[in-house]
Amino acid sequence: MSNDPNGIYFLGPKGSFSNEVADMLEGNKVPLKTISEIFQKVENEDNVIGIVPIENSLEGPVHETLDNLYKYDKIYVNSYVEKEIKLVLAVNNSINKIEDIKRVYSHNHALQEAKAALQRLNLMNIIPVESTSAAALYASKDREAAAICSQYAASLYGLRILMNNIQDNLNITRFIIISKKITINGDRTMIFFNVPHKPGSLYKALEKFYKYNVNLTMIYSRPLKVIPWQYYFYIEFEGELNDIRIKNLIEELRNVVTNIKVKGSYFKLQFQALDFLS
Amino acid sequence: MSNDPNGIYFLGPKGSFSNEVADMLEGNKVPLKTISEIFQKVENEDNVIGIVPIENSLEGPVHETLDNLYKYDKIYVNSYVEKEIKLVLAVNNSINKIEDIKRVYSHNHALQEAKAALQRLNLMNIIPVESTSAAALYASKDREAAAICSQYAASLYGLRILMNNIQDNLNITRFIIISKKITINGDRTMIFFNVPHKPGSLYKALEKFYKYNVNLTMIYSRPLKVIPWQYYFYIEFEGELNDIRIKNLIEELRNVVTNIKVKGSYFKLQFQALDFLS
Repeated sequence: MSNDPNGIYFLGPKGSFSNEVADMLEGNKVPLKTISEIFQKVENEDNVIGIVPIENSLEGPVHETLDNLYKYDKIYVNSYVEKEIKLVLAVNNSINKIEDIKRVYSHNHALQEAKAALQRLNLMNIIPVESTSAAALYASKDREAAAICSQYAASLYGLRILMNNIQDNLNITRFIIISKKITINGDRTMIFFNVPHKPGSLYKALEKFYKYNVNLTMIYSRPLKVIPWQYYFYIEFEGELNDIRIKNLIEELRNVVTNIKVKGSYFKLQFQALDFLS
Repeated sequence: MSNDPNGIYFLGPKGSFSNEVADMLEGNKVPLKTISEIFQKVENEDNVIGIVPIENSLEGPVHETLDNLYKYDKIYVNSYVEKEIKLVLAVNNSINKIEDIKRVYSHNHALQEAKAALQRLNLMNIIPVESTSAAALYASKDREAAAICSQYAASLYGLRILMNNIQDNLNITRFIIISKKITINGDRTMIFFNVPHKPGSLYKALEKFYKYNVNLTMIYSRPLKVIPWQYYFYIEFEGELNDIRIKNLIEELRNVVTNIKVKGSYFKLQFQALDFLS
């Protein structure tokens, strides 16, 4: 496709869950170390996109993503993907049975998620590392080790999977695709705003959504940092900017909130994707 | 005082910012490793209190604290303390000048806060550890090391302070004192609730606050975990349960929200403290 992006930046390292999402898309894929670096690249280069996690069904919104969306006024959300996070217990090829495992590498969040299974299997020597894919890498180089990681990372680093689905809970992460082009069609729309520091100000903002019968799918507050104990709001709602009703809602919102940032409308990614870059 | 608590559990290790808050109180102080352990102890023992961080002016609410307040129906908030988080660059006594520092230990958050200073001083070999007080401990045992930590931790572990106030931003953490006794006097009140999964439900909750002219100081959402993409709300507002207006507000709220949890009213801690345990 002539409208392929010049680069697809995703949260690395290779084998991460973001990497799996990136593999749904065509283009030159580049892992980066932090969410903030992805936003910097998307801001400074032309015709590139970024893939970042925005929310997890157990942990809530990803603060680094929200803070960057709030910071970069020219970066928009074009699409989203939901991915179920499934974890496996994978071992170095030298290991034949669970009793041979001397060490288990993983990321702290994944270790939390697999806590019950680790106790049941009596795996007590746990080593927290920077990511689940780094855990797979370390286990591939340590003949006495296992990793808690994705099936994808296990296969990337040649580990053998001893157990599937060792997480305790249903765990879904939502990723967004970001670029410098705004999209105005979709079933969801994202905005950020501040409210004046006086009684009833958030109420007056939500009143507009009620008036237009628009359903919020998410409301979240984050500290403004520059002023202690003041916050900005992140709101996602059903509807699209291409709809006159949503346009009017946003115009009315401007009367009761400050610093409104409209981040675009978007659909769930359906694999053909990327037409918004044409 | 005969009404001193039998135990004051705080988030350790020794030398932590929670330890500094605990030192404002009289009683038998015990550091614990996690916020969740503190809630367990307060639930299971009689006449004890806990001290946990609830919110930071840069990072926002502390999720482990909110999730535990939501989980334990019989644990209430009795008081709060605001503490400015000041960081120092402290060194092992073998070190005479900044050029001698080979390694800098600290917690990730503190390293973020001191980033500009570390770059300016050309201190590039950074080792993230589990807490700022652990960093001080490690630096006390490593003749080539420095720590980014509190003045309190530096003095506890016999380090020499080379620079004060090396953090970039004004950084305030709010701590709460929790126990099994509800308090109904204060300038703030805390509640949690769920809203029905239909349009306008949060709006209808906030309408009650507007009707009673009650100012929210915080509103925050957290995933319910058991059902993906559903949330509970944490709200703190001005006023006290001892006031008939607030009592009526909460009764009316019950008509529009579900699973309401009232966590008590409380003042900022003023050092005499602890009378609520009588």
